[in-house]
Amino acid sequence: MEIGIDSFAASPNGFEDNAKAIQELLERIALADQVGIDAFGIGEHYRKEFLDSAPTTILAAAAARTKNIKLTSAVTVLSTSDPVRVFQNFSTIDLISNGRAEIVTGRGSFTDSFPLFGYNLNDYDAIFSEKLELLLINRDNEIVNWSGLFRPPLREQAIYPRPIQKKLPIWLGVGGTAASFTRAGKLGLPLMVAVIGGQTHKFAPLVELYRKTGEEAGFSHEELIVGLHSFGYVANTREEAIDAFYPRYAEVIASMNKERGWVAPSREQFEAQADEKGAIVIGSPDEVAEKIIRHSKALGGISRFNFQMDVGLSHEQMKKSIELIGKEVVPLLNSK
Amino acid sequence: MEIGIDSFAASPNGFEDNAKAIQELLERIALADQVGIDAFGIGEHYRKEFLDSAPTTILAAAAARTKNIKLTSAVTVLSTSDPVRVFQNFSTIDLISNGRAEIVTGRGSFTDSFPLFGYNLNDYDAIFSEKLELLLINRDNEIVNWSGLFRPPLREQAIYPRPIQKKLPIWLGVGGTAASFTRAGKLGLPLMVAVIGGQTHKFAPLVELYRKTGEEAGFSHEELIVGLHSFGYVANTREEAIDAFYPRYAEVIASMNKERGWVAPSREQFEAQADEKGAIVIGSPDEVAEKIIRHSKALGGISRFNFQMDVGLSHEQMKKSIELIGKEVVPLLNSK
Repeated sequence: MEIGIDSFAASPNGFEDNAKAIQELLERIALADQVGIDAFGIGEHYRKEFLDSAPTTILAAAAARTKNIKLTSAVTVLSTSDPVRVFQNFSTIDLISNGRAEIVTGRGSFTDSFPLFGYNLNDYDAIFSEKLELLLINRDNEIVNWSGLFRPPLREQAIYPRPIQKKLPIWLGVGGTAASFTRAGKLGLPLMVAVIGGQTHKFAPLVELYRKTGEEAGFSHEELIVGLHSFGYVANTREEAIDAFYPRYAEVIASMNKERGWVAPSREQFEAQADEKGAIVIGSPDEVAEKIIRHSKALGGISRFNFQMDVGLSHEQMKKSIELIGKEVVPLLNSK
Repeated sequence: MEIGIDSFAASPNGFEDNAKAIQELLERIALADQVGIDAFGIGEHYRKEFLDSAPTTILAAAAARTKNIKLTSAVTVLSTSDPVRVFQNFSTIDLISNGRAEIVTGRGSFTDSFPLFGYNLNDYDAIFSEKLELLLINRDNEIVNWSGLFRPPLREQAIYPRPIQKKLPIWLGVGGTAASFTRAGKLGLPLMVAVIGGQTHKFAPLVELYRKTGEEAGFSHEELIVGLHSFGYVANTREEAIDAFYPRYAEVIASMNKERGWVAPSREQFEAQADEKGAIVIGSPDEVAEKIIRHSKALGGISRFNFQMDVGLSHEQMKKSIELIGKEVVPLLNSK
């Protein structure tokens, strides 16, 4: 099983030192590479709290500072992007990183990019569907002929540079929408499931739907790869981990209250979600390794687990967690 | 005077090892930084011969590997880009590089991007003019209200992240079109003049037009900065430089024959352009320093000279030239 870290490049308190924040993020990616973590993902947002509106620049900078780690999006908001530009960006990152680029594409969980780039939210699903089609065509063909509703047509257009990987990995990032699982299955795309709260095993029927749809569409079990993205954090002990993570996490959730009606959980509610079956993967290295294995079994076997820990913890706290994940959680998973 | 190197990320013979080509380009940028060169620029093209369709990923990777050098485009083809994305990309590079990002924007000398991104060449100048306006608005305002013909309107849209430089430098890259010099003057933008052939001093009236227009528009002499971009290459002696550069340069020009009707110059014709007043800045460090000073005087004083040497020379040849420029040409210019 591969282990990854995802970050939304959170802008720190007061937004005063965003250059420092980005440079520290790059340090953490370099550290993740050094301690043997398999993948690092950068999100894509269009708001003051996150510095990842141009995620491919962050990934490219990371590519120049790392040797082995895969560099991916988490997720590429394809609906409001041009699939030609997306492919060119990731293809160039693939060249810079010597074959370590991946795309996780999804509809995104925020809608800020729609008014910014002039799209209509009424077309939410149709836009994504069409753009995903074009992205896959760009991946599989050097010369493209295509036409659609939401992007000018391409007639005998060549798209360069080509990546070094024969087939640049393109995952579909999904939340809880059944149709998204079906879409991934029909296309035979690797599936990245974001389980942000609740209990992870409850996603088993949806993952099963993905595998069933994929097999019916003619894809092999080996092609139908499943990854899991959840909040997570590792410290020496469970108590230390929760003491550090919970207050920051609660602040993030509370700040979404006005916009989304989310209510911050009490510490007790949080601990329930951090419990045996809960989605939050937090604790000592042992506990976290056990939990990832439990989640994997519940979902019929996962190929990658991604930690999202960037809720406002300090650089030092996140570095310590990344070290524990690389040096303790990864070997524990490999030994089982 | 600042000295820069511009590259179009040429894909090497046979296009077989583009990953190596990009990684060597990044090595040359790191070397340029180490030897004290002031700026490195990456072009933007949409064809097999060049690997720079996603130039901001290359610049971001360079930002992660350098300390002092300014990182710029050469040029950003703004007409077929979204000024919001362009600003977000360069603003993120500014954070990654701790304030070293610049944009040189222009109409571009190739037209491949028009059919690729669905624009009509009939609107060539109108598109550029409108998009430049929006790019400057994005630079100068965090919240943008704007509408135009070639991009969806922005209503109270916030554009993040903000760069660390208070005013991200935006130059106007121009060729030989008088109206472009006037445009730069009216807007008070720094001017980057590409003189690709012929004699550099013949551009003096156009540069004078820029300064006059700029002063009439209320900008000070200090704000009306002029840079010069030309083919150039430095070796130990003039003969060695021309022996290495001429055959590759002639190949590049000849390969444009079918498309643009360019005819490769004979060695004699080349040497004439490499002569005292010619545009090609080639020779020993002494000769090149003298020539840059001559060109600067002919144009009423320039603030930056950029070498374009990426015509198919080997990595070793270009590294040697970059070293000579940093260690010999730059000190010679500083001592005059």
